Amino acid sequence: MTANEFEIRRQTIANGLAERKLDALLVSYSPNLRYLSGFTGSNGNLLILPGRAILFTDPRYQIQVHQETTCEVKIAKGPLVTDVLAAIARLRVKRIGYEPARMTCDSFEALKAKLPMKASLTPVPGWVEELRMVKSADEVERIRRSVETNSQAFEQVCAKVRIGMKEQDLAAELEYRMRRLGAEKPSFETLVGGGSRSALPHAQPTAAPLQSGQVVVVDMGAIQDGYCSDMTRMLFLGQPGNKVKRTYRAVLEAQLAAVDAVRPGASTVAVDRAARDVLKGYGLDEAFIHSTGHGLGLEIHEPPRIGKREKRRLEAGMAITIEPGVYLEDLFGIRIEDTVIVTPNGCEVLTRTSKELRLIS
Amino acid sequence: MTANEFEIRRQTIANGLAERKLDALLVSYSPNLRYLSGFTGSNGNLLILPGRAILFTDPRYQIQVHQETTCEVKIAKGPLVTDVLAAIARLRVKRIGYEPARMTCDSFEALKAKLPMKASLTPVPGWVEELRMVKSADEVERIRRSVETNSQAFEQVCAKVRIGMKEQDLAAELEYRMRRLGAEKPSFETLVGGGSRSALPHAQPTAAPLQSGQVVVVDMGAIQDGYCSDMTRMLFLGQPGNKVKRTYRAVLEAQLAAVDAVRPGASTVAVDRAARDVLKGYGLDEAFIHSTGHGLGLEIHEPPRIGKREKRRLEAGMAITIEPGVYLEDLFGIRIEDTVIVTPNGCEVLTRTSKELRLIS
Repeated sequence: MTANEFEIRRQTIANGLAERKLDALLVSYSPNLRYLSGFTGSNGNLLILPGRAILFTDPRYQIQVHQETTCEVKIAKGPLVTDVLAAIARLRVKRIGYEPARMTCDSFEALKAKLPMKASLTPVPGWVEELRMVKSADEVERIRRSVETNSQAFEQVCAKVRIGMKEQDLAAELEYRMRRLGAEKPSFETLVGGGSRSALPHAQPTAAPLQSGQVVVVDMGAIQDGYCSDMTRMLFLGQPGNKVKRTYRAVLEAQLAAVDAVRPGASTVAVDRAARDVLKGYGLDEAFIHSTGHGLGLEIHEPPRIGKREKRRLEAGMAITIEPGVYLEDLFGIRIEDTVIVTPNGCEVLTRTSKELRLIS
Repeated sequence: MTANEFEIRRQTIANGLAERKLDALLVSYSPNLRYLSGFTGSNGNLLILPGRAILFTDPRYQIQVHQETTCEVKIAKGPLVTDVLAAIARLRVKRIGYEPARMTCDSFEALKAKLPMKASLTPVPGWVEELRMVKSADEVERIRRSVETNSQAFEQVCAKVRIGMKEQDLAAELEYRMRRLGAEKPSFETLVGGGSRSALPHAQPTAAPLQSGQVVVVDMGAIQDGYCSDMTRMLFLGQPGNKVKRTYRAVLEAQLAAVDAVRPGASTVAVDRAARDVLKGYGLDEAFIHSTGHGLGLEIHEPPRIGKREKRRLEAGMAITIEPGVYLEDLFGIRIEDTVIVTPNGCEVLTRTSKELRLIS
């Protein structure tokens, strides 16, 4: 990301202040702050005014912050709120927007309690998240690299999976390979679940060894250059029976149908329904207990949500997952997931890993 | 942790409701919820009333939640707040405590907007965090295992560190080794910084190769059985000069002085001052730009903070880090950190890794 790209984003916010009847936006949510400034530290506030952006952080970041951002920087000796309030007073900022879905009640009260006379706080929900939904070419390239790392790590580790390997060790290998391929870290705790544990949508890996005759779910993602990938693939140790094969076919068909529905202008609800309808045809819709997908980028879960509720039109440049799943308690679960970019004419499935059930002998 | 231990914790909350003039406590912060219920999912609310605890989560966790908790469980079809409000109405709960430092403005408004007549919300800051500060014997054992994993991984990787190795690859090896030794994941992004990057208190590993003549900071921790460890050690590639040696001696002396000050009844500020005073004697106190330490447990940063502000008496059973550091911009930084338990008579340094500057040839 060039310094210029961050400046353009801040300019977009600055330009949008007047129509929202605001004089400034206070950004406290770390991924939003990173999106607008480049700063990756864990403690920061960003005050955006027309023609000016001030980033507040603490002394631990006094060297790093200047390496990462072109914003004006203020290193706070105490709580950041004190310095933010001082800047609000000094610059006579009146109408300040804040992030109600991100700011805690305590932070809000601390800000409100010492606000200068005539200054006021206005909730501005999801503005930066809205900008973040549509990715720039540079962001798409980062997601693409993250997806490639994810897929490569999966291939490297699949070649080594054997009966008797612990779920935890399989997860450890996947994360290690992602890092060696350039990822900063996993984009979430790698999920590995064998047998009936594959029926847990969030299957935390255990010390249980993988056994012959087991379905194994692998749900993994990388963060590379700050951007997330997300993929789910299924292994089978041995030869699957008819129930597994039939369920797998149903989920794969549902996944392909949902991918097929992804294009600019399509509604998120329609994409979700495309997957759900296929599963209904197999009598498996009741076992599909989550949404079809979610946006991703700087965070592993971002808007838009691809589910039954929260209808929204897809736009070119959005990055989303498509991941229907079927969960049969005490038996097994099947989920297939790709990372997908909405393109001007449809979509591009970034995840190039084969979607066949992978048989491990 | 036995189911019984979670029940005792919930009982402690239930017993404390009346004196706080509350009929229920609503817990939404994930580590607090885990502490009180055992549930590890990412989306949950816990309503504790006298003689009753209801855990709300979504369908993704419908199998897992029953494996993890003995609480009464409600699987919400939509936003959890809808079901929480329904329970509040049905059970005629009037005075409801919430976590103001954890709840977002949006969540608070969603709750408040549909609260039944005569029901009210009261901020209850830090109650569960207060309980969490003093660890049970079982929790101390988990932290001890996490520390051992951390130290073992460090030893295994130190044996392989060579000039030319990338910072990122060193971090990847450390994390991989922790996982293979039983950790669920790192307790934070492993920090590795060579040369002038060691002067960044949060040195994110880069693709730069380690070079001869460099100080290298390694700050790492594991999460094992849910509990965190945290350790910082310094490597030197080659033979250090006098400035490095003198600075190292100063920080080591400061670290030992602070550890020496840890005992029940000692104030956090006095422990911080013990480290700061030693560095002052070396003329290095201005270069010590953060606190001396922090509590840890289910989270990597918990109360108490061991710093200049926020005075508090230490108690037996608290788990804290002691980690003074000195940061010389453009030159190098030195930090030495242990995980320490406050014992009835003083403290136990759980981290048994040698505190000598580790020379890599």
